[in-house]
Amino acid sequence: MAKSPADNGASAQQRRLQMADIARLAGVSTSTVSRALAGSKLVNEETRQRVMELARSLKYSINIGAQNLRLKQNRTVGVVVPFDTNTRQHLTDPFFLGMLGSLADALTEQGFDMLLSRVDAEELDAAAQPFDTGRVIGVILIGQWRHHDQLNQLAARHVPIVVWGAQLPQQLYCTVGGDNVSGGLLATRHLLERGRKRIAFLGDVNLPEVAQRYRGYCNALEEAGMAPDAQLCVPVSFLPEGGADGVRELARRGCDYDALFASSDLLAMTAINTLRAQGREVPRDVAVAGYDDIELSTYFHPPLTTVRQPIAAAGRALVAALLEQAEGRAVVSQQLPTELIVRASSV
Amino acid sequence: MAKSPADNGASAQQRRLQMADIARLAGVSTSTVSRALAGSKLVNEETRQRVMELARSLKYSINIGAQNLRLKQNRTVGVVVPFDTNTRQHLTDPFFLGMLGSLADALTEQGFDMLLSRVDAEELDAAAQPFDTGRVIGVILIGQWRHHDQLNQLAARHVPIVVWGAQLPQQLYCTVGGDNVSGGLLATRHLLERGRKRIAFLGDVNLPEVAQRYRGYCNALEEAGMAPDAQLCVPVSFLPEGGADGVRELARRGCDYDALFASSDLLAMTAINTLRAQGREVPRDVAVAGYDDIELSTYFHPPLTTVRQPIAAAGRALVAALLEQAEGRAVVSQQLPTELIVRASSV
Repeated sequence: MAKSPADNGASAQQRRLQMADIARLAGVSTSTVSRALAGSKLVNEETRQRVMELARSLKYSINIGAQNLRLKQNRTVGVVVPFDTNTRQHLTDPFFLGMLGSLADALTEQGFDMLLSRVDAEELDAAAQPFDTGRVIGVILIGQWRHHDQLNQLAARHVPIVVWGAQLPQQLYCTVGGDNVSGGLLATRHLLERGRKRIAFLGDVNLPEVAQRYRGYCNALEEAGMAPDAQLCVPVSFLPEGGADGVRELARRGCDYDALFASSDLLAMTAINTLRAQGREVPRDVAVAGYDDIELSTYFHPPLTTVRQPIAAAGRALVAALLEQAEGRAVVSQQLPTELIVRASSV
Repeated sequence: MAKSPADNGASAQQRRLQMADIARLAGVSTSTVSRALAGSKLVNEETRQRVMELARSLKYSINIGAQNLRLKQNRTVGVVVPFDTNTRQHLTDPFFLGMLGSLADALTEQGFDMLLSRVDAEELDAAAQPFDTGRVIGVILIGQWRHHDQLNQLAARHVPIVVWGAQLPQQLYCTVGGDNVSGGLLATRHLLERGRKRIAFLGDVNLPEVAQRYRGYCNALEEAGMAPDAQLCVPVSFLPEGGADGVRELARRGCDYDALFASSDLLAMTAINTLRAQGREVPRDVAVAGYDDIELSTYFHPPLTTVRQPIAAAGRALVAALLEQAEGRAVVSQQLPTELIVRASSV
């Protein structure tokens, strides 16, 4: 990559200008700056501290100036996880945490740091603040939820942004997500192939990704010549107690079912524990499939059949899409393949 | 808080100096800068872009300069998770991820962002780089491992730093950690009270925190008039397969044991699964206790007896200790209480 003339200028001038800049900003003479930087006792402690701090911050600011001329040198990416003041105040969801880990790993591989901020989901515009102030080259947002319109607004004002989530109609922003329709189809088809006839669905279909998983579920039923039964679809949140709530709600409805497809592994796990408390054995009485393949699905008892979200690939894909966009290239949204992982909870 | 004179100077000069600064750094005249900022067609596109970007970064940099004079306005804290190129390249450990979530929540509560960077554990000095460059007011480091000396060096050069981990002799840096000795004691005493006589210990006692848990284990045995048996102590890493490795190693040694204390929940879970594969039932044949109380310990089957690390309190305590230190106050290291959580894996 060719260096621009201003680049050379900035780095050549850097040392020469620094003392004068510090003196000006600190309101002292350059000789005081020189003595302070040398640790001389002739300068009082308060002034010395101020000079040192200015030296440190100006060193940085000139670097930042040069960095923004050559994008490759700003090595920080913003990661925003909106919080919902009502239900999701804390960052404990294992899938989200796994995604953060994957992003941290992918950014480290590329030599980038992550600036993590949480913003109120109702004021999503704040997600662009680290970009607007020049601290990050763009923003990766985890948690599309119901914020399609706000995300479109950010994209419309050319904030480099990539969102983990579902592709939706009239979408201006770039998404990277798992293939949720196919994921829902694979899990449900598998349960049908195991001879199950009445498959309950747990999840909040108002969320875009869950709606797509439910569509896959309906598609699989249709393939088998069956129609979805509204009684078997229970809207529950992604909070851990959602699985227990769902199983209890099915009991309250007096629903008969021999399989259960939960829209996250955590929901599947708490559902299985509640089934066990009801005296129903998994998979004998109820075959269960989850979604995500979080690390602990393997260690759960019984080990969980699930749809694997490509978490490691997701981190790399999100970072790659953001870097492309930050360099001014157009990036199309992409869906990563999902995969059925069969374990003992369904066979 | 009183404003220093330099403060007023910096903010008053800000607007006046900005154009001259941009002109100098961009190698153009101030009138060109003025035209570029006004979007005039007389300035070519490349120059205009350069000027706009410099304007953005200088605005930021002067803010940073002012911020460092008045600490309360820099709203970013560095969080560093060292990676070990040999064994811990990826950020998937559920306890670490839980701690990151807790820190993110605690920082959000205080109105701070988190700058997350991963540094090579062999070059831990790089952990101070975000502070040296003025981007963060200090650093929280998760993963003390074997880096006591390097952490002491950082503290000696007055980098505000708080480390999650064990208090060690000759420690210059501030730590916040769980009370590991007491944790080890509580778990082991509980297993003894359940009538168990031969308690295996899984964990790498070269790591400071594990060494303290092992000390607690030995103390509990001593209370009961028993001596630790070296055959029952198996050094395994914190990687998930450590639990399986440990149980297999005990079998290879031909060791007889009726209980197992693992130094993390993940190790306890993989140990339980390996015991099950060997035809040994938990807790009937082997009572098991873990450490951490990660969220999924409740959902595991059998639910896991464990020592609860105060993860939510830890995030808040780490952030509070760092903010105190960044404002120049001395902070003493602290130990947070740990608590025994009894579930079905041991009773």
